Amino acid sequence: MPELRKDPIIGRWVIIATERGKRPSDFMGEVAAPRGGFCPLCPGNEDKTPPEVYALRPDGSGPNSPGWRLRIVKNKFPALVASEPLEHGQVGIYDWMSGVGDHEVIIETPHHDRKMADFEVSEVEDVLIAFRERIRVARQDRRFQYVMVFKNHGSPAGASLDHAHSQLVALPIVPKRVAEEVQGAKAHYLETKTCIFCDIINQERTAQVRVIEHSDGFIALAPFASRFPFETWVLPQAHSASYEREEGYGGLAQVLLGVLRRIDRVLDDPPFNILLHTSPFSEPDSPYYHWHLEVIPKLTKVAGFEWGSGFYINPTPPEEAARFLREGGSAATPRH
Amino acid sequence: MPELRKDPIIGRWVIIATERGKRPSDFMGEVAAPRGGFCPLCPGNEDKTPPEVYALRPDGSGPNSPGWRLRIVKNKFPALVASEPLEHGQVGIYDWMSGVGDHEVIIETPHHDRKMADFEVSEVEDVLIAFRERIRVARQDRRFQYVMVFKNHGSPAGASLDHAHSQLVALPIVPKRVAEEVQGAKAHYLETKTCIFCDIINQERTAQVRVIEHSDGFIALAPFASRFPFETWVLPQAHSASYEREEGYGGLAQVLLGVLRRIDRVLDDPPFNILLHTSPFSEPDSPYYHWHLEVIPKLTKVAGFEWGSGFYINPTPPEEAARFLREGGSAATPRH
Repeated sequence: MPELRKDPIIGRWVIIATERGKRPSDFMGEVAAPRGGFCPLCPGNEDKTPPEVYALRPDGSGPNSPGWRLRIVKNKFPALVASEPLEHGQVGIYDWMSGVGDHEVIIETPHHDRKMADFEVSEVEDVLIAFRERIRVARQDRRFQYVMVFKNHGSPAGASLDHAHSQLVALPIVPKRVAEEVQGAKAHYLETKTCIFCDIINQERTAQVRVIEHSDGFIALAPFASRFPFETWVLPQAHSASYEREEGYGGLAQVLLGVLRRIDRVLDDPPFNILLHTSPFSEPDSPYYHWHLEVIPKLTKVAGFEWGSGFYINPTPPEEAARFLREGGSAATPRH
Repeated sequence: MPELRKDPIIGRWVIIATERGKRPSDFMGEVAAPRGGFCPLCPGNEDKTPPEVYALRPDGSGPNSPGWRLRIVKNKFPALVASEPLEHGQVGIYDWMSGVGDHEVIIETPHHDRKMADFEVSEVEDVLIAFRERIRVARQDRRFQYVMVFKNHGSPAGASLDHAHSQLVALPIVPKRVAEEVQGAKAHYLETKTCIFCDIINQERTAQVRVIEHSDGFIALAPFASRFPFETWVLPQAHSASYEREEGYGGLAQVLLGVLRRIDRVLDDPPFNILLHTSPFSEPDSPYYHWHLEVIPKLTKVAGFEWGSGFYINPTPPEEAARFLREGGSAATPRH
């Protein structure tokens, strides 16, 4: 059973895998882990994953067999497990919590070599709707306060399998980064009665220097204080706190795919992460929080300065990044 | 001139290198950057670095020539620059600040292939005293609020040069991670009238499961809520807020070197970062903050989940890590 532990100084929770603790020798060969070869996410290998919990099967095929267009399974090596009760405890000055949660893998396509930037809009929409459906299921479990949805593309971004997939982790706490955003947004709302994200969108729409892509419903922009080169956020233009209450995932798919294609072209298929930030379960209609996706290409190394300070050095101003993505990344531009 | 920008949602400052912005093509070859070959930090190449600002020259040799045992120079490619006035400004809802600061490189040894785990205690002590001296100089500049001292060992930990060195960045703000620690420690002090770090040391000395190394003056332990496998903190046993007011760097050198040798042996010279956390310049005698070093081996990848949540999954319980380092890392243990 994994365990959650709270840092007594800053209150950050950490997941400690107490049962299958890694020994020093487990880290020696990890850099050279084999890639390619057998893929447990490919059609025909459905018996190599835990049973599916959701699938799109246009041909009416049966569960856990080929024929699916998208498939969701429990993670075979979950960071947190759903089978235990939620318990808290203290050891002297330390707090711990049982490692209750859930961990699912969204297999985005049956095609092993098809990356998201090469998807059709409708395929991206399928993935985005699958996120919504699984968040709706997770929020029915009263032990959970948040669901973190994310995608790792490429080994340097943390993907351990090449086959396009994303992940969903249900958590018994609101994680630190989301709590910080909620707190900052709440402080802004109390002062101004406006949503800080809506204010950002308004200012960026006027300035037009950091906007990368937009439609009636959604906007993609390089944030003013981008931590990383080519960091891009995708937000609904109208205020909306909770991802799973959104409508119009087709419009979102179009803008997200536009961003991914631009990044793919301009930076030549870089490793990246996509993160979904949405309002905690306790505040589904928050007037101050605004859900969004963060797309973060992994182009720079995070080193001692950043780890020690939480302060990032970004060598590419977001205005430049936005310009490169707008100019170099349009569909009409040749591939390289 | 670099620029500091504040995230309007959570208040995190970011350094944006506005002048020498990296273009997409600058990121393409970066993974395969050449290593080895010419080393600007080696003796004989003193003219390839900016002039030295501090050096240990037991033979009485002149500045910027060979003969040094340790040498400090300004960084040739500084993240922040000292030559400008400190200015603030706003653009709509956004805050920015001029990128004022200082960035120095501590060349820890003249020997290109000598890593810190192979140093003598007195050589580590020289480095630790050099940190103190340069922090004392930096705090005289009223534009600075904090100095971040750190070391990157190995390319995966962010080192761009093989030759053993550490770095010092003077900052016009207190960075987020330090501010969070100060805030957490202050809250604890207001409630209990004790320093949270002193409380941790007391509890760990009694429990003896996460202690790795200790002397009369210093203790090395695996923190209860370790974010990373084999994360190790080194602290003075008696309360002490500011690193540069410490005495007895020899005792610190002994414990730090003990930790580095254990990590080197047990994990076979892994990449790692060392971070110094000390009280901000405004509170040199804080009764609640306690300076410390964090040693973080780079064994796991930080992926979408961690970036999105600020929540870490640690596959090695700190009790296990401490036991491996205690048992496997003693000087009497054969190298592999």
